[in-house]
Amino acid sequence: MTDAPDLTALQRRLVEFAAARRWQPFHTPKNLAAALSVEASELLEIFQWLTPEQSASVMADAATAFRVEDEVADVLAYLLQFCAVLDIDVLAALDAKIDRNELRFPRRDHPVE
Amino acid sequence: MTDAPDLTALQRRLVEFAAARRWQPFHTPKNLAAALSVEASELLEIFQWLTPEQSASVMADAATAFRVEDEVADVLAYLLQFCAVLDIDVLAALDAKIDRNELRFPRRDHPVE
Amino acid sequence: MTDAPDLTALQRRLVEFAAARRWQPFHTPKNLAAALSVEASELLEIFQWLTPEQSASVMADAATAFRVEDEVADVLAYLLQFCAVLDIDVLAALDAKIDRNELRFPRRDHPVE
Amino acid sequence: MTDAPDLTALQRRLVEFAAARRWQPFHTPKNLAAALSVEASELLEIFQWLTPEQSASVMADAATAFRVEDEVADVLAYLLQFCAVLDIDVLAALDAKIDRNELRFPRRDHPVE
Repeated sequence: MTDAPDLTALQRRLVEFAAARRWQPFHTPKNLAAALSVEASELLEIFQWLTPEQSASVMADAATAFRVEDEVADVLAYLLQFCAVLDIDVLAALDAKIDRNELRFPRRDHPVE
Repeated sequence: MTDAPDLTALQRRLVEFAAARRWQPFHTPKNLAAALSVEASELLEIFQWLTPEQSASVMADAATAFRVEDEVADVLAYLLQFCAVLDIDVLAALDAKIDRNELRFPRRDHPVE
Repeated sequence: MTDAPDLTALQRRLVEFAAARRWQPFHTPKNLAAALSVEASELLEIFQWLTPEQSASVMADAATAFRVEDEVADVLAYLLQFCAVLDIDVLAALDAKIDRNELRFPRRDHPVE
Repeated sequence: MTDAPDLTALQRRLVEFAAARRWQPFHTPKNLAAALSVEASELLEIFQWLTPEQSASVMADAATAFRVEDEVADVLAYLLQFCAVLDIDVLAALDAKIDRNELRFPRRDHPVE
């Protein structure tokens, strides 16, 4: 990561952005969850006909790279707006989830013998 | 946000988690985009039959709140892993996207007269 | 339904269409499942910011009606191509599923007293 | 296709099924579009970590084959219910779409020389 604003600053900016455009009535948790899923599908659409190998080099083409970054931004934007509306701390939620997954999936660091 | 780890630290932890389980061969950008979209749909599933009003109070029920936070964490986890694999700075991507949207959608701060 | 071709005839036409364009290498079950989910999201996108009431009258506007019918066609097209590739009889699958659901969900025909 | 009921009969059965359970208030076009997209993602979930080759043989395993057919049935069920609620003739919509695609994508029957 670079010197881009941190997650909390971006979330605050998104909330202010929606308020300044009077979009809050549209931003129910249900609508934001739908929009998040639509944006995630738009990201998937870029990859739908690619082989695994082709999918690994999408960033080599400038136009495709722009599209990928644009969709990634949309996904994060709706995720942060969803969490803002429901007062969810997304970083704490992920931290707790990784803790649970550490218990659920054993490490396989060492070579299988 | 609280004193949860920051986004970069969580992303590093996710990358290390996948490596320790030897999951990298599965983590092509295409597969991660599919998984991200599947998790976003699992979040949407919680809301699919709810009215807009009901959707606003999902966090009042502890079991539903847990499920919502769990899915939110999964969405962010796959988004961060996707961005790690393609070396995308997701915070910079969102910052640039909000800049573009500021130009695209005019503010409506002042009352319509 | 009208005198449109039946499902089997349309499925045959889709398979022939893809063969004539040499698209079969792209039409793995995985890719078709991804494309199906992307098209379903494009249908959802039309509704994402609508109230339940607004969503009930989307067909009143000719341009929106066209878009809805276009996405519905895409969803069915990919579903039929997916089933053709895996040799699944989709009508038999749905018939069997309704049978299972009849047992799973009790009828509530009679007024609650 | 076998001697399973035709699409129109299955659609009628689904509409009757929902009415007998008093589910119509939940079956707004918006909710049905969300449910359709959720089911399409559940189908995709089966394939998300598979290679293209593995995805081609999912029907060889009885448990996976059952799961695939179950999700396919769910997708068609919600598509038919969506079309019933909005009075869309899905077969005619697909027929018209294939006509449009015939014009849009040229055939490549003959070997490139």
